Amino acid sequence: MKKLLVINPNTSEDMTASIHEVITGVLPHVDVRVVRPTTGPESLESFYDYQIAAYELIKMVQKDQQTYDGILIACFGDPGLYALKEICSCPVIGIAEASFSAALLLGKKFVVITALQKAVPMMEDLIDQYGLEKRCATVRAINLDVLAIEQDRGSKYARFIEVGRSCVADGAEVLILGCASMTGLKEKMEDSLHIPVIDPVVTGIKMLKMIVDTGLNTSKAGLYQEPPKGLFPL
Amino acid sequence: MKKLLVINPNTSEDMTASIHEVITGVLPHVDVRVVRPTTGPESLESFYDYQIAAYELIKMVQKDQQTYDGILIACFGDPGLYALKEICSCPVIGIAEASFSAALLLGKKFVVITALQKAVPMMEDLIDQYGLEKRCATVRAINLDVLAIEQDRGSKYARFIEVGRSCVADGAEVLILGCASMTGLKEKMEDSLHIPVIDPVVTGIKMLKMIVDTGLNTSKAGLYQEPPKGLFPL
Amino acid sequence: MKKLLVINPNTSEDMTASIHEVITGVLPHVDVRVVRPTTGPESLESFYDYQIAAYELIKMVQKDQQTYDGILIACFGDPGLYALKEICSCPVIGIAEASFSAALLLGKKFVVITALQKAVPMMEDLIDQYGLEKRCATVRAINLDVLAIEQDRGSKYARFIEVGRSCVADGAEVLILGCASMTGLKEKMEDSLHIPVIDPVVTGIKMLKMIVDTGLNTSKAGLYQEPPKGLFPL
Amino acid sequence: MKKLLVINPNTSEDMTASIHEVITGVLPHVDVRVVRPTTGPESLESFYDYQIAAYELIKMVQKDQQTYDGILIACFGDPGLYALKEICSCPVIGIAEASFSAALLLGKKFVVITALQKAVPMMEDLIDQYGLEKRCATVRAINLDVLAIEQDRGSKYARFIEVGRSCVADGAEVLILGCASMTGLKEKMEDSLHIPVIDPVVTGIKMLKMIVDTGLNTSKAGLYQEPPKGLFPL
Amino acid sequence: MKKLLVINPNTSEDMTASIHEVITGVLPHVDVRVVRPTTGPESLESFYDYQIAAYELIKMVQKDQQTYDGILIACFGDPGLYALKEICSCPVIGIAEASFSAALLLGKKFVVITALQKAVPMMEDLIDQYGLEKRCATVRAINLDVLAIEQDRGSKYARFIEVGRSCVADGAEVLILGCASMTGLKEKMEDSLHIPVIDPVVTGIKMLKMIVDTGLNTSKAGLYQEPPKGLFPL
Amino acid sequence: MKKLLVINPNTSEDMTASIHEVITGVLPHVDVRVVRPTTGPESLESFYDYQIAAYELIKMVQKDQQTYDGILIACFGDPGLYALKEICSCPVIGIAEASFSAALLLGKKFVVITALQKAVPMMEDLIDQYGLEKRCATVRAINLDVLAIEQDRGSKYARFIEVGRSCVADGAEVLILGCASMTGLKEKMEDSLHIPVIDPVVTGIKMLKMIVDTGLNTSKAGLYQEPPKGLFPL
Repeated sequence: MKKLLVINPNTSEDMTASIHEVITGVLPHVDVRVVRPTTGPESLESFYDYQIAAYELIKMVQKDQQTYDGILIACFGDPGLYALKEICSCPVIGIAEASFSAALLLGKKFVVITALQKAVPMMEDLIDQYGLEKRCATVRAINLDVLAIEQDRGSKYARFIEVGRSCVADGAEVLILGCASMTGLKEKMEDSLHIPVIDPVVTGIKMLKMIVDTGLNTSKAGLYQEPPKGLFPL
Repeated sequence: MKKLLVINPNTSEDMTASIHEVITGVLPHVDVRVVRPTTGPESLESFYDYQIAAYELIKMVQKDQQTYDGILIACFGDPGLYALKEICSCPVIGIAEASFSAALLLGKKFVVITALQKAVPMMEDLIDQYGLEKRCATVRAINLDVLAIEQDRGSKYARFIEVGRSCVADGAEVLILGCASMTGLKEKMEDSLHIPVIDPVVTGIKMLKMIVDTGLNTSKAGLYQEPPKGLFPL
Repeated sequence: MKKLLVINPNTSEDMTASIHEVITGVLPHVDVRVVRPTTGPESLESFYDYQIAAYELIKMVQKDQQTYDGILIACFGDPGLYALKEICSCPVIGIAEASFSAALLLGKKFVVITALQKAVPMMEDLIDQYGLEKRCATVRAINLDVLAIEQDRGSKYARFIEVGRSCVADGAEVLILGCASMTGLKEKMEDSLHIPVIDPVVTGIKMLKMIVDTGLNTSKAGLYQEPPKGLFPL
Repeated sequence: MKKLLVINPNTSEDMTASIHEVITGVLPHVDVRVVRPTTGPESLESFYDYQIAAYELIKMVQKDQQTYDGILIACFGDPGLYALKEICSCPVIGIAEASFSAALLLGKKFVVITALQKAVPMMEDLIDQYGLEKRCATVRAINLDVLAIEQDRGSKYARFIEVGRSCVADGAEVLILGCASMTGLKEKMEDSLHIPVIDPVVTGIKMLKMIVDTGLNTSKAGLYQEPPKGLFPL
Repeated sequence: MKKLLVINPNTSEDMTASIHEVITGVLPHVDVRVVRPTTGPESLESFYDYQIAAYELIKMVQKDQQTYDGILIACFGDPGLYALKEICSCPVIGIAEASFSAALLLGKKFVVITALQKAVPMMEDLIDQYGLEKRCATVRAINLDVLAIEQDRGSKYARFIEVGRSCVADGAEVLILGCASMTGLKEKMEDSLHIPVIDPVVTGIKMLKMIVDTGLNTSKAGLYQEPPKGLFPL
Repeated sequence: MKKLLVINPNTSEDMTASIHEVITGVLPHVDVRVVRPTTGPESLESFYDYQIAAYELIKMVQKDQQTYDGILIACFGDPGLYALKEICSCPVIGIAEASFSAALLLGKKFVVITALQKAVPMMEDLIDQYGLEKRCATVRAINLDVLAIEQDRGSKYARFIEVGRSCVADGAEVLILGCASMTGLKEKMEDSLHIPVIDPVVTGIKMLKMIVDTGLNTSKAGLYQEPPKGLFPL
């Protein structure tokens, strides 16, 4: 049986548990392990946070990556993704790139909803780096921090709908929930907004499983060629 | 149980059988029907062919599209895709767009191998239309026509490897087999080229199943809004 | 004397008559025939409509295309254009592409006015496919359906001016009437808006005549190479 | 009767005569005046040359521009074009932009043939400024200076064919002769290369006449708004 | 000691004096000469103005350019820049391009504030030509003419802040004062807006000095290759 | 007196000494400190290396960043740059972005020379992320590893010239030495290649000093907004 590893790159136990719950809900018969680093930021809201978290997740993964058939980075900024693609022998996917790949099949233009305004240019930068700017209508924040969303997702629901409506009015065809903390809102939002809503954790794990099952793997011929001097002891 | 429809938009019985075999090979426990139009070109190698084939496949689909949970168009030019996305209540995916979405997760730059030189600018045009030109290193032809490939795939293998090697030399990270007739060459080519090779039929059906299982559907809020005057009797 | 063929790809007799009147008004001494299919949608407002109409117009044209020195497709979505460019020995031009080519000479940024909101992303997609997105400021709908415009253009005039004004305020330099049904509004709109307004039917036929008179023709070296297997009996 | 002005912005009498001959050949019944400045470079091969020539042509035009119904700048770099578009009440078109507009209707990708290698990045810069880089396959020099071409076009023919063939091999669909000195080579090159060849002077004057006859004019709402402080006495 | 030449390409004595004052303020120990043409427009607000001014500045520079170690064109449209880069043996920099290069190091997206609305599409066109459109959030006018700003910069201050605030609200990270007449407003605006404000004259001269001190010079291998026929006597 | 910090993000003592020597050579009267982490990779040749190095340099900088007036990251991949821009109160510049900003002023198209082939797609990815792809002609490797270059730069010189020549032949106007290990080759290469060669360390420190002296600083309004939850104890 295939073994998948899901890494929540922040240290929040609650968020890790929530990711675990969502994943076992959608993939009940799959061997998935959900882990988190024990040191580092409790939520990732800056490049600074990403750098620290990426270091911790690389440290975790480089020890036993060969145990897994596929790895998912469950933070929407895809921190550490390129490095893991380089060093892992199995496919490694980030929930942001997985969400974009799915969104492309559902509409011409997607939007990304972020937690804080700070993340809006960060996501735009990521989309530029991925060369997908033509498929993104806009990135918009709900102006709530990640832990606040995580702690009480239900009460924040009205805010999501309000921002979602403004996105639809501005040409959004597909709405991507741009933070792992937003997992679980898909159905309710689709009922209100009448456009497909992508849950990044659900889509990420499904896309990973599909890639693994199809026998596809990261190319080591170009951007993700293995580190020439190999691994550094961490 | 979910019902999937796979449409080979050309009239070739052999190619339809081959697509059927490949799909039941990778998805043995799924209810998949593979169909083809009975009139139209035997292989699709021009926009002219696409227009005729698209008409025929729309005629086939508009009668009973509500019977299915997902539809795959199994020709790499994605003929008729936008029209089916408009009129179907279930997800509709083309094997070209599905292959691109998968390729994005495996490398920065993909290449597409086409049958004839004629198809090279056609694929480039498609990639422009999809806004993915930054992720495509090149499109290259093996200079064999579609039916010739279909009839004797094995003997054409050396030609595929030769063209694949030239692509890798020019920066290809992921190689997409850009024609449904090329299905089944993935493993052998990966062994020779050492980069991931995407079989469009296999990836297409897997991606469709993933989208369907995840509860995602085509957005009807923008490009694929339903035809304002409804369906025309065909 | 040169013979030009103008195809109204919908079945509306009124719109065909109106196109005929406009064209003979601007090119009184030229041998122009204006035709329409007898089956298919009465107006084209979706990709679904385009596919059916394109099939019908290809059927019409492939029989006697060699009779003509130039062909104009008089629907702003340019349905069937690429296929006709492939199969015709004379130049084939769509009114959308002709309007864009003219607009480029008059200002840095054009806008396109469409009938329904549905057409806005469709035109944006066309402009992406044509690689002209840098020259387009915006696409905007007047929110009236094509037949309603055709039937009573005069009473809709205020709506056109209102939308036109909003375009000018947002940086439009040249306004393209993005539907054959809008023919005849150029002068009145220019008087109100003080920017050039492009009538797509007038500009289309003039551009076609210019191309024909200059001895230019479609290139068959790339995207529009002839169908490898020739024509299919329709 | 409409009066058209053609400006050869260099001081070469021979080139002016040649342009005059070509234009009266294709538009025998039109009132066209072909002029040149009496001071300035004899051929334009640098931005430095363009600046001097543009100054001289502005000086010529600003005195009597209201006499004309349309103006053509007959140098492929379109020197002074934006300034003339600002100050003239009639349409002003450059032969480069006119050639690009025509090329768009004939193939997906055009190439430009320049005289000297020096002009290659200059043309690429112009195409970037015009936002048309997606439609240009390449720019290539024949490595002969402008006056050498002008003086003995016939003997240079083999060089044009050689460069033209290399362009076709690299995906050119439409070949634009990127210098007014190359006028008159269209037919011979088409016979050898089997792709449409655009003579910039012929296409320029035809496109200008078409724009004038269609009642279109430069937009003064954006980039070409009139100079706020009016004309300066030159 | 290095000798730098600063050219104010308009004829305004006041603006020249103001530029001189600013430059000697920031580079007190450097040998800088600030000059202006004696004929031509008093301020540059159109392509027409640019063409005349460029001619005059080329005339000034070509006589004694070899006297200098670096040249700055102190008008934000960079008029005549490409021509001077071709003919000068020392580095030549425009204040617009220098401001953009500095802005890239301070934020992802810059904005440019222009004097008149007329300049907005002109700056956008310049940014397109320079290939920097992805780094520009917007260009916005304060709707005051250049001489009005120059004559009484203080009283216009509130207008600058108002426009600056609207830019920040729309995602501006770095604000570029897009006219030499705006020099001297940097500190006050930064105090109000809390984003870096680039004074184009100060940044231009500093960037030029840096380039000169670093031993860098214009490349003559491509776009700025020397005029093939040399200089024309002006 | 202004204090500048230069961080060599790898642990190589030799490279740190070489960077120190180069910098004190070009800025003898400035207070510059050159530091390196004591743990981490000895040279940076992969995203994996970047992630580890970035972590170490952030750890070094966050303790005493307020001591400095400007910080330079002296590795061409700009590792950790975005994070430092977020957390530092002074300007932080990477030698890659500084080199690009300088190159823009010297030619239309730059090239980057990297050590290993592995770095070619990495640099292309960086240039995409920075939105500067239109200004880059190509990225090319000399196929020597970083430490080999560092240890014996002289003997590698012929290889640099050979690759440089191929770049010039392909349209390079400005050559950027894309690795801190290549510092010191500028003059010799310029003598052979006759195009400007940018030494990234020299240009980086000069550009930083210019930014600092001009009173400019990182914008905290967008992409580099401070981390919402502040610093994490490292």
